[in-house]
Amino acid sequence: MDRREVLAGAAMLSGALLGGEALAQAGRRSTRNFRRIATEEAFATPEFVEACRDIVKAGWNSKDLDFWRGLLFRQNDPRLADLLDLDQQRLATMDRLGIDMQLLSLTSPGVQFFEPMTAATLATTANDHLAEAIRRHPTRYAGLAAFAPQDPKGAVKEMERAINGLKLNGFILNSHTNGEYMDDPKFRPILEAAAALGPIYIHPRPLPDTIDGPYRDMGLWTAMWGFQVETSLHALRILFSGAFDDFPDLKIVLGHMGEGIPYWLYRLDYMYPKMERMFTRKLKKKPSEYVKSNFIITTSGMNDHAALKYCVEVLGPRNVMWAIDYPYQEAEEATTFMNTAPVSNEDKALIFSGNAERVFKIAQS
Amino acid sequence: MDRREVLAGAAMLSGALLGGEALAQAGRRSTRNFRRIATEEAFATPEFVEACRDIVKAGWNSKDLDFWRGLLFRQNDPRLADLLDLDQQRLATMDRLGIDMQLLSLTSPGVQFFEPMTAATLATTANDHLAEAIRRHPTRYAGLAAFAPQDPKGAVKEMERAINGLKLNGFILNSHTNGEYMDDPKFRPILEAAAALGPIYIHPRPLPDTIDGPYRDMGLWTAMWGFQVETSLHALRILFSGAFDDFPDLKIVLGHMGEGIPYWLYRLDYMYPKMERMFTRKLKKKPSEYVKSNFIITTSGMNDHAALKYCVEVLGPRNVMWAIDYPYQEAEEATTFMNTAPVSNEDKALIFSGNAERVFKIAQS
Repeated sequence: MDRREVLAGAAMLSGALLGGEALAQAGRRSTRNFRRIATEEAFATPEFVEACRDIVKAGWNSKDLDFWRGLLFRQNDPRLADLLDLDQQRLATMDRLGIDMQLLSLTSPGVQFFEPMTAATLATTANDHLAEAIRRHPTRYAGLAAFAPQDPKGAVKEMERAINGLKLNGFILNSHTNGEYMDDPKFRPILEAAAALGPIYIHPRPLPDTIDGPYRDMGLWTAMWGFQVETSLHALRILFSGAFDDFPDLKIVLGHMGEGIPYWLYRLDYMYPKMERMFTRKLKKKPSEYVKSNFIITTSGMNDHAALKYCVEVLGPRNVMWAIDYPYQEAEEATTFMNTAPVSNEDKALIFSGNAERVFKIAQS
Repeated sequence: MDRREVLAGAAMLSGALLGGEALAQAGRRSTRNFRRIATEEAFATPEFVEACRDIVKAGWNSKDLDFWRGLLFRQNDPRLADLLDLDQQRLATMDRLGIDMQLLSLTSPGVQFFEPMTAATLATTANDHLAEAIRRHPTRYAGLAAFAPQDPKGAVKEMERAINGLKLNGFILNSHTNGEYMDDPKFRPILEAAAALGPIYIHPRPLPDTIDGPYRDMGLWTAMWGFQVETSLHALRILFSGAFDDFPDLKIVLGHMGEGIPYWLYRLDYMYPKMERMFTRKLKKKPSEYVKSNFIITTSGMNDHAALKYCVEVLGPRNVMWAIDYPYQEAEEATTFMNTAPVSNEDKALIFSGNAERVFKIAQS
């Protein structure tokens, strides 16, 4: 039993002495002290929704939109209204739950599955739309910029505009682009720009068609399983390509408790020296060291205390950030999950907002 | 703090009162009391090695053997001698480390990548070879039978012979067979037989060629990453096919701390009701309930206390078994890992041998 457990035990004991109602009040008081910044929160622009509908209406076969089809066309799907809203219901939900700020990003599937020109235009309009919402509600929103990797030079220009011009806080990427990953040499300018400008949040996307056969035919291709298979592969390709040796300041944010990677730190470190011959470059550090220095994970979609405790133990409390995945997952469940998390108050403050302030350069309140 | 923690605390306190040296002695005494059964331990027959060499010599392109090629042809690779030995060095290592028993299985890549007739013959000779070794050393070995799923009817006959005739303890399967998984209706007789006869240990194998592109070109296709991607996919396909509703007694053993699946219990349960429409059958229980009732995991290749603690917490101590992966991983490291594991002595006894005795019907010593 370490010191934190002793303190927690003492708190429980004093709670018992206070009686149930007083304890509940004390709980509300103590949790109200945390600034809460949710870090994987989706929005959509009208232009983006229209462009998605055009694809579906034209009968194009889009696996990315298969997942989204119902939401786009069902009458009055509340999630579509929630995605488009940045001034009403979203803020009311945040007020009700004590959420100070959302770090917004253009909803998946993002712009990468569009034609390159459309993708670039949609990214630009989404970033402008986002910057305006932040201007209207500067203490309630921060944001990640979309960009179209299909044209790496154009992407870098938009990344620079988003940070230096629009004052956004980093970037959102929906995993692969036409089956290609960010370790590809053609995307090197994008990683270089991100190392200088701000972190890239790699959000899941369905696996490329070329490798999704046995996920697709069993219903395992989306958030059940395939999303993490795709996103962890992407993150590890970047790691083992040596990108973090070239760009030590490059930060990659991974949702869903790190897309499974924290579970494998021992094995990655154990196997890498035996497998080194399979890689074109030799890494300077152990794989787990990059996971701890260049990846930061969020709790999005994983309201699971056991996994949270595990991650805080193996990655340290500075590498975990809180997220909801609004409006796709329930804001109240995610907030209660973190309010009641079995970690010290010091760690809770880091996970609720301290790490997000540092990583995304969000002004302290 | 539950009862076990209190007892552990009391043990530590009495250790402190005894002083350092007495404590170390007490530690040695207490660890000597565990029966140790290692559950993922490889052997090879001369026939199997010869058949692998034939494939390589004939110039056939075998991804499975790429991984093995050095071991087959390097002069005096000690691992090849260790795989073939069942009477000398293996027993000496076990004696030195206090390992009472190895549960043996034919080494990966197993028989599934051979032509069907060759596969069946190699499985039969391996099972006979294994049964003879157990007859020579009945207190030191138990064993898992190989079988050739290419011919499901023939496989079932060999499975019955292995359990009823040779008195083996279960089955070893090296994941996919020609890109097909055990949920395929043609393999149904094999799952039905296993439900009646004994558990199937699904050992990793490289991903099918059809879906390994971005693993292959980055050195991520073997034990670094691809092995668990392949094996967890296989296990989840069986689960979501509804096989455990048809065969509630079917047990699947997974190495490497459950191939990552224990990390995802919350998300599998959260997402399944939303994704149900993607599946042809509706499951009777929550996904995590099958993980706890029909999967059993081993620690093979994952000598990691944080992951062990996590698995004991989320799966319960009856669902975790100790393994080394001899001779591919170090027996001493795996033994020390479990000797010093941060779990109660009661749980340690289950993980070291109690669960293996129950699951594989190994007589208690």
